[in-house]
Amino acid sequence: MRLKVGIAGATGYAGIELIRLLGNHPEAEVVLAGTESYVGQELAAVYPHLAGHLSLPGRAATPEALADECDVVFTALPHGVPMKLAPAVLGAGKKLIDLGADFRLRDTAAFETWYQHKHEAADLMSEAVYGLPELYRAEIRGARLVGNPGCYPTACALAAAPLLKAGVVESRGIIFDAKSGVSGAGRGLSLGVHFSEVTENFKAYNIAGGHRHTPEIEQTLSDLAGEPVVITFTPHLVPMVRGILATGYFQLTAERSTDELLALFREFYAGEPFVRVRPAGDLPQTKQVSGSNYCDIGLQVDRRTGRVLVIAVIDNLVKGAAGQAIQNMNLLFGLPETTGLAAAPIYP
Amino acid sequence: MRLKVGIAGATGYAGIELIRLLGNHPEAEVVLAGTESYVGQELAAVYPHLAGHLSLPGRAATPEALADECDVVFTALPHGVPMKLAPAVLGAGKKLIDLGADFRLRDTAAFETWYQHKHEAADLMSEAVYGLPELYRAEIRGARLVGNPGCYPTACALAAAPLLKAGVVESRGIIFDAKSGVSGAGRGLSLGVHFSEVTENFKAYNIAGGHRHTPEIEQTLSDLAGEPVVITFTPHLVPMVRGILATGYFQLTAERSTDELLALFREFYAGEPFVRVRPAGDLPQTKQVSGSNYCDIGLQVDRRTGRVLVIAVIDNLVKGAAGQAIQNMNLLFGLPETTGLAAAPIYP
Amino acid sequence: MRLKVGIAGATGYAGIELIRLLGNHPEAEVVLAGTESYVGQELAAVYPHLAGHLSLPGRAATPEALADECDVVFTALPHGVPMKLAPAVLGAGKKLIDLGADFRLRDTAAFETWYQHKHEAADLMSEAVYGLPELYRAEIRGARLVGNPGCYPTACALAAAPLLKAGVVESRGIIFDAKSGVSGAGRGLSLGVHFSEVTENFKAYNIAGGHRHTPEIEQTLSDLAGEPVVITFTPHLVPMVRGILATGYFQLTAERSTDELLALFREFYAGEPFVRVRPAGDLPQTKQVSGSNYCDIGLQVDRRTGRVLVIAVIDNLVKGAAGQAIQNMNLLFGLPETTGLAAAPIYP
Amino acid sequence: MRLKVGIAGATGYAGIELIRLLGNHPEAEVVLAGTESYVGQELAAVYPHLAGHLSLPGRAATPEALADECDVVFTALPHGVPMKLAPAVLGAGKKLIDLGADFRLRDTAAFETWYQHKHEAADLMSEAVYGLPELYRAEIRGARLVGNPGCYPTACALAAAPLLKAGVVESRGIIFDAKSGVSGAGRGLSLGVHFSEVTENFKAYNIAGGHRHTPEIEQTLSDLAGEPVVITFTPHLVPMVRGILATGYFQLTAERSTDELLALFREFYAGEPFVRVRPAGDLPQTKQVSGSNYCDIGLQVDRRTGRVLVIAVIDNLVKGAAGQAIQNMNLLFGLPETTGLAAAPIYP
Repeated sequence: MRLKVGIAGATGYAGIELIRLLGNHPEAEVVLAGTESYVGQELAAVYPHLAGHLSLPGRAATPEALADECDVVFTALPHGVPMKLAPAVLGAGKKLIDLGADFRLRDTAAFETWYQHKHEAADLMSEAVYGLPELYRAEIRGARLVGNPGCYPTACALAAAPLLKAGVVESRGIIFDAKSGVSGAGRGLSLGVHFSEVTENFKAYNIAGGHRHTPEIEQTLSDLAGEPVVITFTPHLVPMVRGILATGYFQLTAERSTDELLALFREFYAGEPFVRVRPAGDLPQTKQVSGSNYCDIGLQVDRRTGRVLVIAVIDNLVKGAAGQAIQNMNLLFGLPETTGLAAAPIYP
Repeated sequence: MRLKVGIAGATGYAGIELIRLLGNHPEAEVVLAGTESYVGQELAAVYPHLAGHLSLPGRAATPEALADECDVVFTALPHGVPMKLAPAVLGAGKKLIDLGADFRLRDTAAFETWYQHKHEAADLMSEAVYGLPELYRAEIRGARLVGNPGCYPTACALAAAPLLKAGVVESRGIIFDAKSGVSGAGRGLSLGVHFSEVTENFKAYNIAGGHRHTPEIEQTLSDLAGEPVVITFTPHLVPMVRGILATGYFQLTAERSTDELLALFREFYAGEPFVRVRPAGDLPQTKQVSGSNYCDIGLQVDRRTGRVLVIAVIDNLVKGAAGQAIQNMNLLFGLPETTGLAAAPIYP
Repeated sequence: MRLKVGIAGATGYAGIELIRLLGNHPEAEVVLAGTESYVGQELAAVYPHLAGHLSLPGRAATPEALADECDVVFTALPHGVPMKLAPAVLGAGKKLIDLGADFRLRDTAAFETWYQHKHEAADLMSEAVYGLPELYRAEIRGARLVGNPGCYPTACALAAAPLLKAGVVESRGIIFDAKSGVSGAGRGLSLGVHFSEVTENFKAYNIAGGHRHTPEIEQTLSDLAGEPVVITFTPHLVPMVRGILATGYFQLTAERSTDELLALFREFYAGEPFVRVRPAGDLPQTKQVSGSNYCDIGLQVDRRTGRVLVIAVIDNLVKGAAGQAIQNMNLLFGLPETTGLAAAPIYP
Repeated sequence: MRLKVGIAGATGYAGIELIRLLGNHPEAEVVLAGTESYVGQELAAVYPHLAGHLSLPGRAATPEALADECDVVFTALPHGVPMKLAPAVLGAGKKLIDLGADFRLRDTAAFETWYQHKHEAADLMSEAVYGLPELYRAEIRGARLVGNPGCYPTACALAAAPLLKAGVVESRGIIFDAKSGVSGAGRGLSLGVHFSEVTENFKAYNIAGGHRHTPEIEQTLSDLAGEPVVITFTPHLVPMVRGILATGYFQLTAERSTDELLALFREFYAGEPFVRVRPAGDLPQTKQVSGSNYCDIGLQVDRRTGRVLVIAVIDNLVKGAAGQAIQNMNLLFGLPETTGLAAAPIYP
């Protein structure tokens, strides 16, 4: 019997990406499409690309409906909302994977400081597991509540993990200079996503500790390093729809060659179905993971300055959101981790 | 046992799209990747997005290898080359689907006039079936050689078919004003595909009878109308990668409403898995079929001038090339027509 | 003494393009920047690209202020608003150039039908001159009120004029298949200008008599033909910021060669500073006029169907709006027509 | 009498940008357009956007012709070629501004190491002045040979100068994470500028000491710091035509506020016509300088890590190439520095 899936926030970009990917999933089916803006409308009328793929009207995603009708709920909503839905869903013995920020941080105070929002389910926050399978797979398997990582944090954490775990770089002074496509800003309207303002344009935003993904990255890096890590995180906006590229700068603790470090990465990610370490001299580009759940990683040592640079790319809507959420669902329900996620990237 | 597939021209854009789509096909597997430029190299080294998806070195696509090792051969090559490969493949009892121009036209003289190239397999040309399943499904089923339609002709023929078949429009004076993304020009290098020349630019090219897809469209329309049809075909280049939109202009023979004609289209395409007729007032956009084998069609009557305008959109690399080729393969081998082609479009 | 210029609607795209171009104009200076959204804010704070170029706060564009402080007023506003401002400005002996729709049509009934808006200055409507200098230069010189043409109508009228004037094409059955960049939709927010929805997308909109530029084009073509002309006008949206390309389809009344018709165009536009007729075999692209006031035109006869196709390109914000408005201002004040408009296009 | 200008390499992107900008220059005129590919062809036939702007055939740029016919020569050529032209031009008492790499570095050995090319005019190399007017204005005024800075080095040096000069940051550990539009790669053909490969894609390249602009940036920073500076320089490719954004990371030597440092920048660049320091909280975007000679700079202190981040944007073809070269020409000939460069950026 297939898993009954509810999506709260089904008509945002993460929501319809969930629907696209779950359409390829043999063990799950979407039974409840929650939406605020399109209640009563067929999803395929709102999004014509879905015509013929599902017949499902938008509905209000009430806690009761989600708890009653679904085996697993994905929430793709503004922060503050999932924390209101989670108790009912979990109380009914169902599982919840939040694609937003409510259950990523473990530290309630940090959440409240960075998001300027009181957390109304602090107990669940501490129970929740951070859904980055490459680093927390065992914990995810036994969980009922998953905080699905942010798009930037996914790329940054996977770029840093082998280095910090092996202790070959200093935990101080780490910089992530990150670049994202515009879909990361969602479907809401603002000048910042206006075509004529974005095209032929490139900018930085929320720099120098201004972006809310900063504490999330630091939480994971601190876990890896075994001590508190403070980073500089600098997001930029690229005139493209999909894709994140994170350029990580790390100070080596001792001289290492590019080949040594690539070997370290290959070993660390051996067996991982969604991490592809590129050969020496080959840096990944965002387009080579488009539409897929891959994180591709390349690196190079800068001998002149004793640094190693790591480049990681993901599709922000897949490994950075909906794909990773399904990967987590597979883990929660004991399915093979790649179920529904095996299609190759689309290129060009 | 899965079909053994050979691709001659595997490293062009149509070739790698075949590889992407066949990766989702449960009944077929690529066993021979023919290439000129990358002989001996792993495809996944040439195209990093394929890493982990197949281990297949580029090889010379000799007639012998294709005939020996494959059940079905796709040729995605410049015109003139497939006609040299076809005899051996067919002679060995295998099937061939040409994504190029060698086997689309029935009239050898027309081929030689438009392509300025002597046809060396005129007998096969007359045997070949034109691979537009919505119009020639019965013939395709029994064929061993398929001329897979061009990208523009696919969109134009599907836009025109119900009207001409029903005789509600004049067969004279038809215009197709068509617009294509840049991937239609392939991966070869030229100023015409140079990013800085194409971006923020729009142009027409090969107009007024200058484009080789003209006789191909006319052949199909003549079949439909039961009399020779001469059209005006005007291709344009859009600064995007994938997608074709064809705007067809037809003179109505008598007054008709938009609703009447939409009903005609819905009836004509009833049961077609890959044609989606849009409701009244809803015109299709290229992005809503991106990555998929759909042709979406909308139309509107212009009462002021007695015309009907039909808008058809496809992904030029899928329904306009690789997807349609696989649809044809499914027909040739008695498989369900949608096998391997059921994934939803990717949006946004 | 320099002309004192007021702009009502200074912070929309047409408004800031006026400001950019007037910055190069030796005989004019902007003294009043009217805005609704940014009253009291420096323009250079709203639009950082203008920093250092002017110090001018946004102000409410009241009829009194415009009439008192300006020699000439440009209105770049929604239809219905300029008709409220014009009486005061003209009454004070000043001149007004409306970049919107209020004064383009001569027929009040047509305006009210197409715009669903009562015209409150019908007398001025009939007095106003249509500001397409290549066709109405003499009338513009003596006018005090100019209806500056729409972007599509500029391209379409210039594509058609020599043919209709010479009577070498039929006045029936004319089609304009037109394509515009996104800046034509202005700076307002909607899904239709959302980057993730527009990029890698192409669509038609308001087809089959649904676009308000239709009667405007027909008015000019009727003037040229000396009889009522009804056209089919089909606008499309191109994923680029600037540029319009209009593809015009005309039925020849007798056989003509491409060279003959090009000669006709060259003669018709001889001495025109902003129309460049391309040589045979050379079709214009939008990028070659970007940022400039040019309209570039190419054409080709389709002997197979007895049609001539004319391709015209403009920058919709310049020759399609702000540049043409300044060209009109130059005419109104007896300045050389190219003053402030002589800079070359920006390429690439 | 106007300066007679020769351009060797007139048909590349830097060359035609020189032609566009010199078209606005009242004291200079292009008399010799040197080209390899288009000898004998009118520039306006090669680049239709120039039609009506100049009548000048492409010619071979021989040392003799340049020396005889021009007052000043711009070379926009591959490295190794200008060094062959310079002796004749200078020997004839004329001036030369090289937009390439031959005369930027002072250290012949560094040139030969980074460019793997023997320098044939080492004496001229040491005579040449580095053409970054904001830092080397006095030297430029008296020079006859200018090495016009690279695009990345212009943005990086202007971002770093006030900090290093004031000694408020450490000279060790500086990182420039830089992003460039595609026009920086020129008009030559390669997969790296193929539209379908670049669009919807983002990548890093030549990282970790692999890019030849590294020693050029280090030379300027060493001048500023008064000691050898070694940097990490990471270039990336953005899917847009024009624009560079450099994100500079500097470690503060003592605590400083954003406001203090902005005051430092404003003072350092007081009176500079082409540097615009943005107010606190306002980071520059590439589009706001498009088509202009501006460098816009913003910064923010990251208190959590003791760093200051500086964001600088330029149009790579203007301040990063042709515009800066004209600024240098103005200095060499005692003209007002902004002559021909005063037009506002084009937006959107």
